[in-house]
Amino acid sequence: MRKIVIGVMGPREGNPEETRAAFELGRLIAKEGWLLLSGGGNEGVMDAVNQGAKQEGGTTIGIIWRENNLDTSEAVDIAIVSGMGSARNNINVLSSDVVIACGLGAGTASEICLAIKAGKPVVLLCQDEITEKFFTMLKKDLVFPADSPQKAIEVAKKLLPSKAHTS
Amino acid sequence: MRKIVIGVMGPREGNPEETRAAFELGRLIAKEGWLLLSGGGNEGVMDAVNQGAKQEGGTTIGIIWRENNLDTSEAVDIAIVSGMGSARNNINVLSSDVVIACGLGAGTASEICLAIKAGKPVVLLCQDEITEKFFTMLKKDLVFPADSPQKAIEVAKKLLPSKAHTS
Amino acid sequence: MRKIVIGVMGPREGNPEETRAAFELGRLIAKEGWLLLSGGGNEGVMDAVNQGAKQEGGTTIGIIWRENNLDTSEAVDIAIVSGMGSARNNINVLSSDVVIACGLGAGTASEICLAIKAGKPVVLLCQDEITEKFFTMLKKDLVFPADSPQKAIEVAKKLLPSKAHTS
Amino acid sequence: MRKIVIGVMGPREGNPEETRAAFELGRLIAKEGWLLLSGGGNEGVMDAVNQGAKQEGGTTIGIIWRENNLDTSEAVDIAIVSGMGSARNNINVLSSDVVIACGLGAGTASEICLAIKAGKPVVLLCQDEITEKFFTMLKKDLVFPADSPQKAIEVAKKLLPSKAHTS
Repeated sequence: MRKIVIGVMGPREGNPEETRAAFELGRLIAKEGWLLLSGGGNEGVMDAVNQGAKQEGGTTIGIIWRENNLDTSEAVDIAIVSGMGSARNNINVLSSDVVIACGLGAGTASEICLAIKAGKPVVLLCQDEITEKFFTMLKKDLVFPADSPQKAIEVAKKLLPSKAHTS
Repeated sequence: MRKIVIGVMGPREGNPEETRAAFELGRLIAKEGWLLLSGGGNEGVMDAVNQGAKQEGGTTIGIIWRENNLDTSEAVDIAIVSGMGSARNNINVLSSDVVIACGLGAGTASEICLAIKAGKPVVLLCQDEITEKFFTMLKKDLVFPADSPQKAIEVAKKLLPSKAHTS
Repeated sequence: MRKIVIGVMGPREGNPEETRAAFELGRLIAKEGWLLLSGGGNEGVMDAVNQGAKQEGGTTIGIIWRENNLDTSEAVDIAIVSGMGSARNNINVLSSDVVIACGLGAGTASEICLAIKAGKPVVLLCQDEITEKFFTMLKKDLVFPADSPQKAIEVAKKLLPSKAHTS
Repeated sequence: MRKIVIGVMGPREGNPEETRAAFELGRLIAKEGWLLLSGGGNEGVMDAVNQGAKQEGGTTIGIIWRENNLDTSEAVDIAIVSGMGSARNNINVLSSDVVIACGLGAGTASEICLAIKAGKPVVLLCQDEITEKFFTMLKKDLVFPADSPQKAIEVAKKLLPSKAHTS
């Protein structure tokens, strides 16, 4: 049975608020029995969300930008080694049932855009007003701001395609 | 001698103002002796910019999203057939010395983000206030709004790496 | 803890001998506690190896060539949707600790070549004499013929990098 | 008008016979008015074929494996910077009307396989008996051995899709 995949996109950097939110997101995703997919980096939001998921015994997938695992998070169980740099961002979103963007950098912003392009719903977490305005303008019916990890999970739950199932 | 490549990114759709600007951009790029690179589509901004470049005898390169040329612009001389969907957007920006975004859709927005991520300068043309604000916030020193095709070319000229040369 | 990933490459088609071997390979990989990675198709060798792994309760990853799961095997747990056609073959091999090629088609042959290029060891199963000769000539010290699924697993075990661990 | 693109694939290394043949191939391709497409490297067969084409005033396109042009041939006019490692090999063949393989390494062999997978005809030049046997076995009606650069060009000419045109 195919499992539900939640993609959490966020920067290698991340202020304390963002990394705390990412860790909590990871925990909540694991508790739902969903798979966590991310860019798999060993710093910032990327690392924190994987650490959170592992604390709850979840399964974590990283789509790695480089040709090896030199900067892959220790908390990634399954490393898909793409070797294709930022072009792998498109794989991140195509492989996710719902995308949650936590924090922002140019890479994360590209993933929000690519998700919208592919028709995937995106939950925005820890974003400022301008960012929410911009992406809502870009595609109102695929963009869902949330003000806490708990809310992000609630929104994601409603957005999941009915054909998918938990493990 | 490696030639200067200007990437023009824009939607398959495009209002009359955007397609007129794109056509003019194409003409001006060709007149500078620069190569035009685009997503190569046969509609909207993508088609218009290639048509403009051909009117002035320029050389046009299209990085095609699909596995064949079924919807490639007739005005594309050289079709690089990627077969990798929106993941090819990263190739568009990595291959350009300067990126000009004319009009906006989710795909174009992803290209602006990927350009910033790769450290490439981006000129914004025919963008609304929110879009300019968002991308300027994302990376002020790589984003340059312009209010006409002529201005976009002037800005691009200043941004070109000094090591590059015209044909 | 990163898990061991065994990539099994094989055609969408497959004669009865090849699909039987693939099913058995899948079973044995699951019994070792290794992850199975494949191209994820719903026919031939690709489907059989995933079915075998699921019979033993293994975890199966498919790197999907298209933008959706329309022809993904029901026995794939985790579908990584690449949307990049045969270019995804390189991800298959970069993500595998050892590659086993079971049966042959042009796609599978490209994966053997890409594995060798990336320095990954390849076990050849159900291959004819010419195929074994060709790949041994291409890179003797990375190519290991095996005459049964059991032998392929034994060879794979010896080839595993010592730093990797089972789940 | 779309131009005819001949892809010449070959290793970064190359013995004197192979690099001489590659240089001659490049010259002949340029004389036909065809575009030369290659992996764009600055050594071996890849460099030689581009040098040959430039000697006759041809236009040369390199599909670059890395994220920059640090090891791109000086004789490449148009560098398409893929940043995706060997996954770019699939773009090489999808973008070519006919593929000519000159010399062999694992990367070149992957390109022959990917060309066959994509239904592109492949001319084999400077290949040993085992290599010719293997690829002929893989797909007889797409594989054409040639014993000189001149013969390779003659064969390519017959294989060109009738819809394509010279510049």
